[in-house]
Amino acid sequence: MEEAQPLRQEGDCHGAGERKAHHSEKFKSNLLARLNRVEGQVRGIKGMIERDTYCDDVLNQIAAVQSALNSVGRLLLEGHMKSCIVERIEEGDHAVVDELLVTINKLLK
Amino acid sequence: MEEAQPLRQEGDCHGAGERKAHHSEKFKSNLLARLNRVEGQVRGIKGMIERDTYCDDVLNQIAAVQSALNSVGRLLLEGHMKSCIVERIEEGDHAVVDELLVTINKLLK
Amino acid sequence: MEEAQPLRQEGDCHGAGERKAHHSEKFKSNLLARLNRVEGQVRGIKGMIERDTYCDDVLNQIAAVQSALNSVGRLLLEGHMKSCIVERIEEGDHAVVDELLVTINKLLK
Amino acid sequence: MEEAQPLRQEGDCHGAGERKAHHSEKFKSNLLARLNRVEGQVRGIKGMIERDTYCDDVLNQIAAVQSALNSVGRLLLEGHMKSCIVERIEEGDHAVVDELLVTINKLLK
Repeated sequence: MEEAQPLRQEGDCHGAGERKAHHSEKFKSNLLARLNRVEGQVRGIKGMIERDTYCDDVLNQIAAVQSALNSVGRLLLEGHMKSCIVERIEEGDHAVVDELLVTINKLLK
Repeated sequence: MEEAQPLRQEGDCHGAGERKAHHSEKFKSNLLARLNRVEGQVRGIKGMIERDTYCDDVLNQIAAVQSALNSVGRLLLEGHMKSCIVERIEEGDHAVVDELLVTINKLLK
Repeated sequence: MEEAQPLRQEGDCHGAGERKAHHSEKFKSNLLARLNRVEGQVRGIKGMIERDTYCDDVLNQIAAVQSALNSVGRLLLEGHMKSCIVERIEEGDHAVVDELLVTINKLLK
Repeated sequence: MEEAQPLRQEGDCHGAGERKAHHSEKFKSNLLARLNRVEGQVRGIKGMIERDTYCDDVLNQIAAVQSALNSVGRLLLEGHMKSCIVERIEEGDHAVVDELLVTINKLLK
């Protein structure tokens, strides 16, 4: 698992208004750096297809992007569970559990 | 399954030199259009994180990109199997089966 | 999602001693009925292999068992999150979040 | 990958009648030994649920069974591709490629 994410940040994932995330800037830049790489890899795959690169090589690149994207999803799930999920449960807002289950089931697909 | 991909295209995934794919332009533009959307979705996720969008919404977007990327992988696997894999097996080049198994196992992860 | 699982059952997944689940008998018999079917399907696959059944048919049966097992896992994850996870978070025992993340990551594999 | 599976066995996955697998007895007993363990593990999970074992432990066991079942699937896919798939392609029976793609897509789920 990534460096321990401080459990609670200032912010309001449980305010009356629009729910917001409240990750540290360090956590956000880690996610953004990974997503930049994913974006570059996707562009790279487009180039491979344009150049008629042998499919097996392209398929391996797609598997690499899927793996990188999985890592981003896991990091975000961890950050979410250690902040908003805990906060909303502690306030008795158990609806967040159903919300989380729906999302986890999509990621499990 | 996508419209029937004509089984064999001119091209040489089995030449002595560097192996190349030989998909129809229609197939390639289909893949490229999908990858353009994936690239845009990844950029969209970066924006969501920069704007502190509620994590559950971001996680759902990541699941959508994974699903779109899976579709590209499946289309490419089909195109690959109906062209290079069949050609190389027909020429007795059974090493392609091990190559394909390694790639499928990565996609199965 | 399966019929709403009553959020809290009598029982002690947060006692000092050995942690125990505390599902309703109805929930447990649902899980057990599904697992009985999975067990039968696995036995069926063994029979198919013994009888040299065409591999494609056997592979499809394996995919069906995986899907049935996934359903059991999701049901159990839901029951777990709506009982022990919520209880332990409400008592300030946030270590349960790391425990859950490790398990979810294994299921995501 | 498992010990090299001899590419072709006597047998008729391409006869007019019912298609049959034709694996070596050694390969079959390897698959059956693995499936025996899976069957035992499923029975073990039923026991854990009957004894109200803490859900996290049960979920980890489910992940272990899924992983063992995946291994059986991959072995069988390899055996299938190195026998029937190659034979039927070599005889010009390309319909086997579509059949295989449908099965792989189910395993990719």
